[in-house]
Amino acid sequence: MKTDLDAILQSNNLSALLVTGPGQHNPAMVYLTGGGHLTQADLIKPLGKPAILFHGAMEREEAARTGLLTRGYNHYPYRQLIQEANGDRVKAAALRYQKMLHDAGVTSGRVALFGVTDLSVTFPIFSALQALMPEIALVGDSEGKILAEAAFSKDAAEIERIRKMGQITVGVVSRVAEYLTAQQVGANETLIGEDGAPVTIGKVKRLINLWLAEAGAENPEGTIFAIGHDAGVPHSTGTTADPIRLGQSIVFDIYPCEAGGGYFYDFTRTWCLGYAPAEVQKAYDQVLSVYDQVYSELQPGAPFVDYQNITCQLFEEMGHPTVGSTPETEEGYVHSLGHGVGLHIHERPFSGAGASPEDKLLPGAVITLEPGLYYPSRGFGIRLEDSLWVRPDGKIEKLVDYPMTLVLPMKSQG
Amino acid sequence: MKTDLDAILQSNNLSALLVTGPGQHNPAMVYLTGGGHLTQADLIKPLGKPAILFHGAMEREEAARTGLLTRGYNHYPYRQLIQEANGDRVKAAALRYQKMLHDAGVTSGRVALFGVTDLSVTFPIFSALQALMPEIALVGDSEGKILAEAAFSKDAAEIERIRKMGQITVGVVSRVAEYLTAQQVGANETLIGEDGAPVTIGKVKRLINLWLAEAGAENPEGTIFAIGHDAGVPHSTGTTADPIRLGQSIVFDIYPCEAGGGYFYDFTRTWCLGYAPAEVQKAYDQVLSVYDQVYSELQPGAPFVDYQNITCQLFEEMGHPTVGSTPETEEGYVHSLGHGVGLHIHERPFSGAGASPEDKLLPGAVITLEPGLYYPSRGFGIRLEDSLWVRPDGKIEKLVDYPMTLVLPMKSQG
Repeated sequence: MKTDLDAILQSNNLSALLVTGPGQHNPAMVYLTGGGHLTQADLIKPLGKPAILFHGAMEREEAARTGLLTRGYNHYPYRQLIQEANGDRVKAAALRYQKMLHDAGVTSGRVALFGVTDLSVTFPIFSALQALMPEIALVGDSEGKILAEAAFSKDAAEIERIRKMGQITVGVVSRVAEYLTAQQVGANETLIGEDGAPVTIGKVKRLINLWLAEAGAENPEGTIFAIGHDAGVPHSTGTTADPIRLGQSIVFDIYPCEAGGGYFYDFTRTWCLGYAPAEVQKAYDQVLSVYDQVYSELQPGAPFVDYQNITCQLFEEMGHPTVGSTPETEEGYVHSLGHGVGLHIHERPFSGAGASPEDKLLPGAVITLEPGLYYPSRGFGIRLEDSLWVRPDGKIEKLVDYPMTLVLPMKSQG
Repeated sequence: MKTDLDAILQSNNLSALLVTGPGQHNPAMVYLTGGGHLTQADLIKPLGKPAILFHGAMEREEAARTGLLTRGYNHYPYRQLIQEANGDRVKAAALRYQKMLHDAGVTSGRVALFGVTDLSVTFPIFSALQALMPEIALVGDSEGKILAEAAFSKDAAEIERIRKMGQITVGVVSRVAEYLTAQQVGANETLIGEDGAPVTIGKVKRLINLWLAEAGAENPEGTIFAIGHDAGVPHSTGTTADPIRLGQSIVFDIYPCEAGGGYFYDFTRTWCLGYAPAEVQKAYDQVLSVYDQVYSELQPGAPFVDYQNITCQLFEEMGHPTVGSTPETEEGYVHSLGHGVGLHIHERPFSGAGASPEDKLLPGAVITLEPGLYYPSRGFGIRLEDSLWVRPDGKIEKLVDYPMTLVLPMKSQG
């Protein structure tokens, strides 16, 4: 929670945070400003003092709306900076940061950099700033620990924003199920739309984007809607021109966010239209049983990676290869169990190879639980995923309910 | 054009480009890969050799679709890297880059970094890489020159993609005009929707997003739809809850892009619903005459900033303050004349304070022309903007036509 920022700065031995970049689609900036429409801004949060938002003069009203202390870049006239830098633009930009840090009272110690920005612009500038100010140490947060400590524990208002995105998400999922099952079935068990043309993955994705937009959500990361072989490749997003056929597994993984790059929700169901082949049904039942068992065992405070290990063990007992025993396997259980969700679609705590023992299911965390089985060589994949909240009272709550059903009967086949 | 990459590397004295980050909403990566759905990738383009795309093992099929040489991160097992780095994760990541550069044959010289990424992750990694490899110099491209040289000059296929976005854009603009003029007018000359409630800025923006999504476009940067005082603050995006009233200037600046963070279009019209007050009409006519005059004077090869100076001069002659004589003015003509448009909504050539003499109207460039007048204290602002193509034959072509009309008559007042 934002009130903890000073404690977090202190425990990380930081004298300030410096967040740069746009006001939207920039998680650290969204978190600290609330997400105004700023083309480019810099936020400096010094230890023990309020944050200052530095902004373009033309965006003064958007900046003021954040409720933060603000200061226009026009206080640092470019002509003077470029003169002082002998015409070197990178140095001029670094000089401006030096002056902004000075005006924020930051003259020593460790300063953590944040911001989704173009490295080609910011790497040289911050390298020059570091050379200009040896009295500070510019550090990052490569493990996502510093702001994550604050962002990790969501407050009630944040949970309600995530839950609302979840409700929008399952609303769209439900519309997709309605749409698919209402189509006609043509030759080769292919879905045929009202216009007589095959229903393609691309068409379904277009409808998903439309329905998400109608509901006021954004879909910056796209959607996975992958069928058959593609469903067996976890991060294949599906092939646009592919038709949709009965009896093939469809992995539908949808992860939209609030407009302006706000809170995400993450959700997956696997469907077969009409009927499911026996081996797909068996794998589905196995994934569902692992989901249920791991869900029932989740304990607040436990390392997330413990459940990854349990998941591998359960799948191994069923005879599937897993990343637990064969890290490079591309068949069986091939990824990690889940991850945190918030202003990033993937954030701490993590459960996979990169997870640390500190990646725990602490109260306030929102995580995904997403076991799966992948057999591209046999033309199918299964994944089931919900977003869960580790409540302050220690209970684990699924934020939004939605049925777990593999087979969606076609209406025309009543 | 991409075929020029080696020449550009050579003329910039570079031994390689290193592009990192996601496959979408990351202009350098989109430019070099075509824009596949990759969560995280690294592209190394060595001088005189083909580019290699490094990717997560799970995204091998998305990576293969780019048609580039590919190499999975699984060739650099994390367990070995973290061991070699004595448990230091930042160093482990830097070691992987060292090995990838080595495998790409890059062992010396200047390497230019690109990629829209989280600075908190990449700044420490590339700082560590620089320390690890003193034999290379990691540089950026803070003035957007290196890839811009290639991206600057759009080929015919790129122009058609931008033009198509323009056609989508004016299609949506036209629907918004239709929608607004079809509403009823209630007390205080406020627009009233079918549901009997006032039509707000927020409602119009929601429709804009919906119609853009219907047309398959994305709107990652939002839309400016600002009325009255807000129209007088160039980068105010408008106040969500504001009602829409007759006789007030509306600045409607819309800049969507292709799905997945592809090519942008940039377009602005200023409208008054029902009628225009005399001072707004006068300012509009002045902006339009400046637009027409500057447009007619544009010469291929000329520095863009020359036309900014001409624009300032024309507005000054009409008695308006401008950034030409008063850089900090917030009334009159307060911004720059235009900018390049492509995979970035703002790219070179620039025309404002930061422009260099090299920011020229070279053949292949797509630029905006967007003069305006801003009087927030008098409750209005005007901006007119189209995207123009500097054709290889030297002619300047407006990519998409749309009428310049200030007053949109309300249908109910027929």
